[in-house]
Amino acid sequence: MSSDPIADLRTRLAELADLHHAGSIIGWDQQTYMPARGAAARGSAAGTIDRLAHERTADPALGTAIDAAEAAGEDPGLIRAVRDDHERAARVPSSLVTAMTEAANAAQSIWAAARAGDDFAPYAPVLREHVANCRAYAACFPEVEHPYDALLQRFEPGATTAGVRAAFATLQEGLVPLIAAIAERPDPGDLIGPFPVADQRTLALEMARAVGYDDSAWRLDEAVHPFMTSGGREDIRITTLEDESTLAIGIFGVLHETGHGLYEHQIDPRWDRTTVGTGTSLGVHESQSRLWENMVGRSPAFWSHWYPRAQQLFPTQLGALPLERFLASINAVRPSLIRVDADEATYCLHIVLRFELEVALIEGTLEVDDVPAAWDARMHELLGVDVPGPAKGVLQDPHWAWGELGYFPTYALGTIIAGQLWEAAHQQLPDLESSIASGDLAPLRDWLGEHVHAPGRTRTGDEILRAVTGGGLDSGPLLRYLREKYGALYGV
Amino acid sequence: MSSDPIADLRTRLAELADLHHAGSIIGWDQQTYMPARGAAARGSAAGTIDRLAHERTADPALGTAIDAAEAAGEDPGLIRAVRDDHERAARVPSSLVTAMTEAANAAQSIWAAARAGDDFAPYAPVLREHVANCRAYAACFPEVEHPYDALLQRFEPGATTAGVRAAFATLQEGLVPLIAAIAERPDPGDLIGPFPVADQRTLALEMARAVGYDDSAWRLDEAVHPFMTSGGREDIRITTLEDESTLAIGIFGVLHETGHGLYEHQIDPRWDRTTVGTGTSLGVHESQSRLWENMVGRSPAFWSHWYPRAQQLFPTQLGALPLERFLASINAVRPSLIRVDADEATYCLHIVLRFELEVALIEGTLEVDDVPAAWDARMHELLGVDVPGPAKGVLQDPHWAWGELGYFPTYALGTIIAGQLWEAAHQQLPDLESSIASGDLAPLRDWLGEHVHAPGRTRTGDEILRAVTGGGLDSGPLLRYLREKYGALYGV
Repeated sequence: MSSDPIADLRTRLAELADLHHAGSIIGWDQQTYMPARGAAARGSAAGTIDRLAHERTADPALGTAIDAAEAAGEDPGLIRAVRDDHERAARVPSSLVTAMTEAANAAQSIWAAARAGDDFAPYAPVLREHVANCRAYAACFPEVEHPYDALLQRFEPGATTAGVRAAFATLQEGLVPLIAAIAERPDPGDLIGPFPVADQRTLALEMARAVGYDDSAWRLDEAVHPFMTSGGREDIRITTLEDESTLAIGIFGVLHETGHGLYEHQIDPRWDRTTVGTGTSLGVHESQSRLWENMVGRSPAFWSHWYPRAQQLFPTQLGALPLERFLASINAVRPSLIRVDADEATYCLHIVLRFELEVALIEGTLEVDDVPAAWDARMHELLGVDVPGPAKGVLQDPHWAWGELGYFPTYALGTIIAGQLWEAAHQQLPDLESSIASGDLAPLRDWLGEHVHAPGRTRTGDEILRAVTGGGLDSGPLLRYLREKYGALYGV
Repeated sequence: MSSDPIADLRTRLAELADLHHAGSIIGWDQQTYMPARGAAARGSAAGTIDRLAHERTADPALGTAIDAAEAAGEDPGLIRAVRDDHERAARVPSSLVTAMTEAANAAQSIWAAARAGDDFAPYAPVLREHVANCRAYAACFPEVEHPYDALLQRFEPGATTAGVRAAFATLQEGLVPLIAAIAERPDPGDLIGPFPVADQRTLALEMARAVGYDDSAWRLDEAVHPFMTSGGREDIRITTLEDESTLAIGIFGVLHETGHGLYEHQIDPRWDRTTVGTGTSLGVHESQSRLWENMVGRSPAFWSHWYPRAQQLFPTQLGALPLERFLASINAVRPSLIRVDADEATYCLHIVLRFELEVALIEGTLEVDDVPAAWDARMHELLGVDVPGPAKGVLQDPHWAWGELGYFPTYALGTIIAGQLWEAAHQQLPDLESSIASGDLAPLRDWLGEHVHAPGRTRTGDEILRAVTGGGLDSGPLLRYLREKYGALYGV
């Protein structure tokens, strides 16, 4: 042990950061360039890297190093984050960690086959095992108010079931009548493609560069399920997979991943090679992707700048289409079955449903066998759609097959946070709309960099929100934003 | 510790293999797709992965596990290889390992600047430090006959300075008069391009697939300095960088890397996730690349099949050029300054020179400041060329800047071994030439798979050679091959 406790802790964190770096890059490679038959060896290698990182995080010596560094004056935000990582890793027995990993690995093909066969039955035992593991996991944290808190906090430190429940109740209360009112109005119709993928790529990269994508520190590649990952602040990897029938993935998906990437890219260099040099939570991360994809990327101001360029690239498809009709189409609201295809208005209700079912499963008030019926009933109540079978219902997402109960809420939390940040940015940057309309995204980028990105994990999502808005999680701004947006688009 | 010592050792080796896997893939990424500014974080991550692997290799508990597994009947070839790794890692103090790594890292930019400035002086202190470190390294192995043996054996287990010296003496004795005789004959002239890079890629991939490249388990990407690496037997990565003025890299370079890749690809699956599931030495590895690049890839039999296809792809460049003139051009012998551009006849003399200087530096009979003069004098003696300055002389290669004395000889050892294997393959596969001429490379691929590739590191290069040829390292077959080849081409 070094005589400098802060340096000693930083050395441990650097090693962990390096392991996470290697894990991220081999994970990226697996989803982009790895030959198909490389999967078995890659799975083993990724598992070992994860295990080594977990062992180091759980190591009692790390706990001692954290205490010593805290006493020596290390940054309190860093101390809190790394202590949380350490205690979480140390509290959960490695036998349970292994059981959860093995169950998740085994579940993937069972889930895929169940979905392909549109049959929940073969998947039920897998989900039961995951629920049992998640309850055992929650039991490792007896101090939490609700057992689901322990699962939620894996992805959203500090969040509580009660807090999410309250925010989601407000959201549901506001969204259901808004969606019902929109349903009374004429449908704006879809854009008529095809939109050649090479031209989508050109436009998406031009937009991404305007947001902050820099060719010397970012990459854009193809992956079946687009994602963002990084090898540190100066090695940001985003992915896409264009479909010529729509701009949803090639343009809006890239803006979404660029938002995630910008977060990691703008973290203060002082947190390089630590475990706090990354996004503070999945919810705050998702706030950044949704803010850029939707609040910026589907706005009239943004397209007042970019639409002429889009018309130039797609002259036969968009040349004769007025901007107003383009905006109406890219903002169409249509209750539907599939979460990943959902629009801004209906998306969060898909999450409300998943959250309710997860909580009930953990509380034991819902049995796994009853999940499909509960799903279908709630889809009807919340969105008025009828589920034709589990493939388009409970089996649509992989998250439960991964055993990741507690993950889904972060998608809606991110949307709520995006609403709060968007409102605050307008208040603090009076020229925001005009700068976006002029194609200048730097004021927003810099404002997010300073208030959201720079601290990495040294500030919690709640602290970031309070510093920016003066209050905590609040669904109000998102609802105001959506009401104003759809008021203009649909006259509701 | 498990009650099964073999399983216990295999678990340790699996973890090491996984670390090597991660290190290989992040290294590949660094040279292919990583954004430029990602280099600093990548360097740290790669260093940590290497260090973790080194610590585990040096761990006394690994030594105990090796002994126990040996007693329990583990494969003797595996035991020998992993014990060698362990003892080598355990013998060298970690302070020296760190000093060597740091010196190598610091040397890269100094070497590059010295080469750019065509000035040896700023590089001399760096090389002096490397020589001192290498002598300290050699001193960790007092049992070797010659201190340079310890350096050589980092790359070529079992090889000795005396053995290399003898093989190289025979080589030099045979090559110098052969090259002199060729110099009396008319130069065959170069191929006249340009050869569009996309067509080179097409042809190279068709050839690589004939050798054994399989799209489900291999990749071909671009890298400034082409290389081969792998994420295991079913994830083979080769790289190229075509130059439209020549087929040297785009065709022959790809055949070279395909030879390396085929070796890793054909190792027996029983060695998956162990540290012996890779090439047994750099020399044997190089024998595979050179055999496919030169002995197969520049042969009349090979091109009797492939030349019509090449003429189809390059009709204006090759359409009117007779096969004989094509073969003469791709096999032109011209003493020159730069090793990586050297032809089959002169290549090994570049290595003889480097070997002599390395041995003299380690023996202390040559001072670093005298290296450029020694280099230039020996280039004149061996190849009859005059070195205009260190950039095209002693500074041309990065290996010494990496601190890797002992590495260069493996290039010529590989060429010698390729000659022995090529001769043995002809004896054991009477239809070899006709199968190659018919485009069927499977008999040679399978023969190499069985006799060279399958055992991985469980057999040494010497054991492989003895099993195939009945004898050890022998420059004779290479000289016979070259004499026959150039006899036909040049009438010498």
